[in-house]
Amino acid sequence: MRARAAAARVAHLATTWATGGPHVVPCCFVVEGDRLYTAVADLKPKSTTVLRRLGNVAAHPRAAVLVDHYEEDWGALWWVRMDGAARVVTPGSREHVTAVELLGAKYVQYGRRPPPGPAIVVDIDTWRAWP
Amino acid sequence: MRARAAAARVAHLATTWATGGPHVVPCCFVVEGDRLYTAVADLKPKSTTVLRRLGNVAAHPRAAVLVDHYEEDWGALWWVRMDGAARVVTPGSREHVTAVELLGAKYVQYGRRPPPGPAIVVDIDTWRAWP
Repeated sequence: MRARAAAARVAHLATTWATGGPHVVPCCFVVEGDRLYTAVADLKPKSTTVLRRLGNVAAHPRAAVLVDHYEEDWGALWWVRMDGAARVVTPGSREHVTAVELLGAKYVQYGRRPPPGPAIVVDIDTWRAWP
Repeated sequence: MRARAAAARVAHLATTWATGGPHVVPCCFVVEGDRLYTAVADLKPKSTTVLRRLGNVAAHPRAAVLVDHYEEDWGALWWVRMDGAARVVTPGSREHVTAVELLGAKYVQYGRRPPPGPAIVVDIDTWRAWP
C-alpha cells in the first residue's frame, strides 16, 4: 500500500470549501513516512485554482489524497487513500525547503524548475487501501 | 472540454463528510449533457466505502467530479472538473434504469454485469477546465 502510494506520479487532492462543498484537483506529491508534500501540478502558483486550494486548506485543514490505478481489466483496479491534517507552508520556511527538495528528487521536472509558491503538507492519520 | 470529459474512462468523485472533511474515490461514469451518472468502480455495493460515499451525498448533496490526464511531459497535462448537486438514485427508479443503461453502453464491463445497488446522479452547474 505504501509502496504503491509512494511510486505513483499523480494523486488527487480533495479539500473542503469554506462553504462545505467538495473540491478536487490532480497533484504531484511525495510521501515520506506519514507525511505527504504536494505542489501544484499546473505550475501556475498564482492561478485562481491554486489560490482556492490554499484557501480551502486554511479554512478547513483536512485533506484526502487518493492514488489509484485504472485499467479495463477491472480485476486489476486498486487505490490507496491518505487522509490527514493539512497546512500550507510558504517559501522561506524549513518545511518548504524540505518539500522542494523531496519533490525535486522525485520529479526531474521539479529538479529542473523548483515549484514556486507555497506547498501543502498533509500529516497522514489514516491510510486506506482497496482491494 | 466536454468531449474530453465524456471520453474519459475513470473520474475522481469528491464529496464532503457530514463532519465537513473531504472524501475522494475513483469512479466510472457517464456524462449526458449537464448530468453525470456514476456507479461504484469496485463493484462491491455493500462495501463500507460505497456506503460512506452514499452517506456523504445524503448528508451534503454536492459533488466535484474530476477527469484529468497525466504524463511526464507537463506541457500536455489537462483536467476538467464538473461541480454540481448530487443525489442517490436507487434500483427501481426511472433514473436508476437510465444510469444502468448509459453505463452499460459506455462500459462493456457493465454491459455484461450491470452495476448493482444505488447510483449517484450529479446535476452539473459548473464546468471548469485547465489549461
